[in-house]
Amino acid sequence: MGDRFTPEACHAGLVEHGLIIPVGAKGIFGRSAVFEDVLERFNLLVSKTGAGDRAESCVFPPVIDRKVLERVKYLESFPHLCGSVHSFTGNALQALALAERAREGGDWSEMLTATSVTLNPAVCYPVYPGLAGTLPAVGRIISIIGWAYRHEPSDEPTRMQSFRVREFIHAGTPDQVVAWRDQWLERGLTLLRGLQLPVAEQVAADPFFGRAGRLMGSNQMAQKLKFEVLVPVISSGEPTAICSFNYHQDKFGEAFGIRTADGEVAHTACLGFGMERVVMALFVHHGWHVEDWPAAVRAQLWPEGLSARVTAP
Amino acid sequence: MGDRFTPEACHAGLVEHGLIIPVGAKGIFGRSAVFEDVLERFNLLVSKTGAGDRAESCVFPPVIDRKVLERVKYLESFPHLCGSVHSFTGNALQALALAERAREGGDWSEMLTATSVTLNPAVCYPVYPGLAGTLPAVGRIISIIGWAYRHEPSDEPTRMQSFRVREFIHAGTPDQVVAWRDQWLERGLTLLRGLQLPVAEQVAADPFFGRAGRLMGSNQMAQKLKFEVLVPVISSGEPTAICSFNYHQDKFGEAFGIRTADGEVAHTACLGFGMERVVMALFVHHGWHVEDWPAAVRAQLWPEGLSARVTAP
Repeated sequence: MGDRFTPEACHAGLVEHGLIIPVGAKGIFGRSAVFEDVLERFNLLVSKTGAGDRAESCVFPPVIDRKVLERVKYLESFPHLCGSVHSFTGNALQALALAERAREGGDWSEMLTATSVTLNPAVCYPVYPGLAGTLPAVGRIISIIGWAYRHEPSDEPTRMQSFRVREFIHAGTPDQVVAWRDQWLERGLTLLRGLQLPVAEQVAADPFFGRAGRLMGSNQMAQKLKFEVLVPVISSGEPTAICSFNYHQDKFGEAFGIRTADGEVAHTACLGFGMERVVMALFVHHGWHVEDWPAAVRAQLWPEGLSARVTAP
Repeated sequence: MGDRFTPEACHAGLVEHGLIIPVGAKGIFGRSAVFEDVLERFNLLVSKTGAGDRAESCVFPPVIDRKVLERVKYLESFPHLCGSVHSFTGNALQALALAERAREGGDWSEMLTATSVTLNPAVCYPVYPGLAGTLPAVGRIISIIGWAYRHEPSDEPTRMQSFRVREFIHAGTPDQVVAWRDQWLERGLTLLRGLQLPVAEQVAADPFFGRAGRLMGSNQMAQKLKFEVLVPVISSGEPTAICSFNYHQDKFGEAFGIRTADGEVAHTACLGFGMERVVMALFVHHGWHVEDWPAAVRAQLWPEGLSARVTAP
């Protein structure tokens, strides 16, 4: 192993070895017990890596208040990736019409209306409104894991519509936040290299929509606001980003009224590990059977040995 | 403690003791590290309770192939609960119009089109298509935990738009499936009574839409296809269902081509614990601080003692 796969071969390998379960729609497959065990073990390693941060931790559901998306201007930058949630609020007659439309295989979606929520496109978004007010002098660090949604249906297994991200968020002064981001860039590279993944860091841009978006991406790169850690997984195209570091400057501080202890608008940064992508990179580089992975990698993920594995959810 | 709360008092208690984090939209609050620790401990107790099933386990994302919802005729019974996912697929000019609409606080949802997915209304749904084909003689038992969505925005904290359910699913012959369901009803009651929750079982109906739906609900109750385990949490209305047992007869076997070893259409049953509701019931009945919970309850949830708790995600 260690060679990159075509998208088809990577998908076939994951399916044939019982690691993912295709479901029809693109990018929303099931994950097997073995896949989940690797993911959970990696999550514990991230927790260990970040233990010094003494982060507060919390969990948010996969949907988010629609107003948060509006306040962070998500629709201006990423309309093509959003997932707005719509439901039926009509009367009995309209319900009959909806059911008939669905039965006939027609488009029943236009008979729905928008709910108060959308799918959450970035696991850290629900955290910022909760930081409103004045931070302690050291700022605040939050640890979170959750499901993100991006409307990017694809047969390429690392490009999912629904996936988990383990994130840390720091709100504080610009100096605090940038120093912490730089420290985590080193921590992340060390962690992933310790798992014998051939990672490299790179200045990056978010996938902004359209021509105006390309300009926003160029500005973002020129200011070095985003870094990604990449690893080769798929043979076509760029290496796969498995970890990303974002310095938002005062964007969320302004949007949600977050202030530092001395009354300035707080700056924020976040970093996130793409959990399914890390797991897939491990299988692609070390083999389809965890029993065959290098001993040094297994020792980190399963310090008490593979025989102690719990593979129930 | 032990008294039921008004919806407002229950919500206030959860917020004031740092257990949930309000976010604006109804029914999609954050969960604190302490809340998550109780949830995870209860999840482990469920796994222990079901260990004899030797279930296969897997994880699916919070969204599901739109076609599954159509094939199980969800829109005919529960249109008011569905969460259809819509995104933007237009051009640059339309994107500008969308962004402007959002900026002005207008309804931008009508400028979107339906994606291939909806939110998953029942954690077990993505499992059934994967059971297509012929089952082994003993049938198959699947264990799963995941996020469900129901469009039921409410200030009552146990009524959420987005919540987790731990489920077990059995596909097999009618005899296998009914005996297993009955066994789990006993197991579930024993588990919850062991945690000193004053539970009771009850024949129940799903919340079908409209007048025709009430008839479907009556039929379901007459056939005793659904049982719920209830516990008093909120002072107004019925006790809260924290566990539910559903016998689907041949519904999913027919819809997805699941056959028993001797070639009949397979029957299925599932049972699910409403994880957030169980956690809330424990706090309401035993107090807002886990340190004060009855020793016998703590001994089950934290067999190695409260001091060994891990509250990071």
